[in-house]
Amino acid sequence: MDVRISKGRFEAFSDGVFAIAITLLVLELHPPDLREPSSGALAAALLAQWPDYVVYAASFTTIGIMWFNHYALFHNAAAISYRALLGNLALLLLVCFLPFPTLLIGRFGLVAPAVELYSLTFVGLAVCFNILWYAVRPKAFGIGGVRGFIRTRTVWNTIGAAAYVVAAAAAFWLPVLSIVLIAAVAVYYMLPMSVRGALAASNE
Amino acid sequence: MDVRISKGRFEAFSDGVFAIAITLLVLELHPPDLREPSSGALAAALLAQWPDYVVYAASFTTIGIMWFNHYALFHNAAAISYRALLGNLALLLLVCFLPFPTLLIGRFGLVAPAVELYSLTFVGLAVCFNILWYAVRPKAFGIGGVRGFIRTRTVWNTIGAAAYVVAAAAAFWLPVLSIVLIAAVAVYYMLPMSVRGALAASNE
Amino acid sequence: MDVRISKGRFEAFSDGVFAIAITLLVLELHPPDLREPSSGALAAALLAQWPDYVVYAASFTTIGIMWFNHYALFHNAAAISYRALLGNLALLLLVCFLPFPTLLIGRFGLVAPAVELYSLTFVGLAVCFNILWYAVRPKAFGIGGVRGFIRTRTVWNTIGAAAYVVAAAAAFWLPVLSIVLIAAVAVYYMLPMSVRGALAASNE
Amino acid sequence: MDVRISKGRFEAFSDGVFAIAITLLVLELHPPDLREPSSGALAAALLAQWPDYVVYAASFTTIGIMWFNHYALFHNAAAISYRALLGNLALLLLVCFLPFPTLLIGRFGLVAPAVELYSLTFVGLAVCFNILWYAVRPKAFGIGGVRGFIRTRTVWNTIGAAAYVVAAAAAFWLPVLSIVLIAAVAVYYMLPMSVRGALAASNE
Repeated sequence: MDVRISKGRFEAFSDGVFAIAITLLVLELHPPDLREPSSGALAAALLAQWPDYVVYAASFTTIGIMWFNHYALFHNAAAISYRALLGNLALLLLVCFLPFPTLLIGRFGLVAPAVELYSLTFVGLAVCFNILWYAVRPKAFGIGGVRGFIRTRTVWNTIGAAAYVVAAAAAFWLPVLSIVLIAAVAVYYMLPMSVRGALAASNE
Repeated sequence: MDVRISKGRFEAFSDGVFAIAITLLVLELHPPDLREPSSGALAAALLAQWPDYVVYAASFTTIGIMWFNHYALFHNAAAISYRALLGNLALLLLVCFLPFPTLLIGRFGLVAPAVELYSLTFVGLAVCFNILWYAVRPKAFGIGGVRGFIRTRTVWNTIGAAAYVVAAAAAFWLPVLSIVLIAAVAVYYMLPMSVRGALAASNE
Repeated sequence: MDVRISKGRFEAFSDGVFAIAITLLVLELHPPDLREPSSGALAAALLAQWPDYVVYAASFTTIGIMWFNHYALFHNAAAISYRALLGNLALLLLVCFLPFPTLLIGRFGLVAPAVELYSLTFVGLAVCFNILWYAVRPKAFGIGGVRGFIRTRTVWNTIGAAAYVVAAAAAFWLPVLSIVLIAAVAVYYMLPMSVRGALAASNE
Repeated sequence: MDVRISKGRFEAFSDGVFAIAITLLVLELHPPDLREPSSGALAAALLAQWPDYVVYAASFTTIGIMWFNHYALFHNAAAISYRALLGNLALLLLVCFLPFPTLLIGRFGLVAPAVELYSLTFVGLAVCFNILWYAVRPKAFGIGGVRGFIRTRTVWNTIGAAAYVVAAAAAFWLPVLSIVLIAAVAVYYMLPMSVRGALAASNE
């Protein structure tokens, strides 16, 4: 009753989008607008735009982590349903959109509207990941049946989504809190990989 | 009498082009040109450019749907003929061209020439899809022989092409009608997926 | 005595480069710089930049044909030698460079230096294709042994390279001749596909 | 106790990033800013920006060599550990960053801060390659057990990293030395391929 899409082209297309989104980030780094390329002035100008490097590294790491989560999500799926295809398209739309609010923060600093747009993008990403997680989950059940893995991931996804909603709510009062929360979730998603690894290994 | 191209690189190349075309769309989003990054001014400027976000989402969804149709088109094809290769190249040329009229509408609004170019691009896309459909169809016959599926798709393709021709004809008198027609075809291509799904599932 | 590179990643990397080079071409199309988006002015401005569309279509088709030739070249190769890898890198370097002289011609018209750079790029591409052809040819012998196919391709490659050299020599006296020659070679590479197809089909 | 990532999507994602980073380089080539497209002025302007072509070719070759090293590194790995995944992400971050210092040198010449940033990027790349080498090495042991190959590569990696550190240290006193060192390492990595080839072939 539902289209089953073979994973080959689905993953190739998604990999392509992630790879391009992550590579386009460097286009946001502009050389300093200097007329006389004196060594001291260039060094000062390059050091002065350090926030751009931080934003570049942060966005790069974020998209990289999302790629890995995307990989883990579909690793056990035997085929892709049409609902998962639409959810994936929405996810990729937000992944590709992420450079825009990132650019705004790099340009204007931690101003409320930029942080709000940034936080809302992460809320949308979490919603898409949760939709995809529920659309793909039954297959993971069918293959490995590791309930613990699924329960853990459901908790993870809920905590991440909740943190992003709080970040979006806080953006207009305390933009710094929003950024700290989003960064904390990123670290949280990276740190417990030994746990995640043990679960994933037993699942294969 | 004809070259048979293995699907591997043909699909990898096409996937790459779709993935890049869909990702480049974000480059059309520019940060507001503000000197003083006051919170209120930035919020107002970001809200004022809402048509850009609509255009971004619409183009993203359109290319995503075309990718899926491309996937469905070649899913059952055992090999690619040289005619299909040329038709595919023409299709990709228009897919990659789509961001340009999209950008024009985002920049100038629903002005006749921009909408005309936009509509004509869709007419060209429909022509290419129909050429590809006729070039690839016999293989679908050979594998599943589901006449109903083929008849349905032929009807779909004809309706879509006809709607685009009407949109192109209307662009100089009633640009809004053209956009509504093109959007309606997009929704039409997304909605009957349960029907399409049932047919495709019985075809595998 | 020589590295043998498996074709998988070699072709994936090359496909990626071709796909990106062909997709980046649309970034050269700029919307007209109009303050008042009146319908007539926009139509006139869009029509006035018709050479850009021709250049876009020509470059797109050229890279598309080169992708197909690249596909045909390595289709029968069992593995990639290190020499072929270096030749391929030089080829991709020129494929990625092509948009630059194309952009020059689109910007300045058929001026001698732009056409010269354009022609020299094609001379370089032909040299790389010939080096690759000689590096890969023995494997084709080993698999199919179709001498006729190889003799035909050798003739083709020589004719193409000679035409490009003439185009490069003529660019400073008669730029139009250079462009006509390069276009003629492109048509020449597309037309005899029925012959090439018959040979390639018997080769599989 | 550790996630094992199948190589398919890991390599597809990495190939995509390398392919895009190498293709984006052409966007740094800008047409001369001329009002009157006279043939002589255009030729002079195109010749005057010869350093841009050198930088383009150098960056293209460097990323191409790194892609090949990346290929060789993971060719024998049966699966990717999570540590290797993070090291790979850091490597890709620097690969994608490389166009920025390259652009600075193309714009400002061999000024100390630009050369310093360029050299430090190569130090970072060497560190990442060494981390990856140690993370992936055990698997190579397991498959082929060619100790000589591993010892040679360890020596290579150490020499390369040391040369980059010297280049970074020299950048503020003698920028030319830094560039010569980095170029020498690139040539060094390309030249002994017959040795590397013999070892790699016996390893398969």
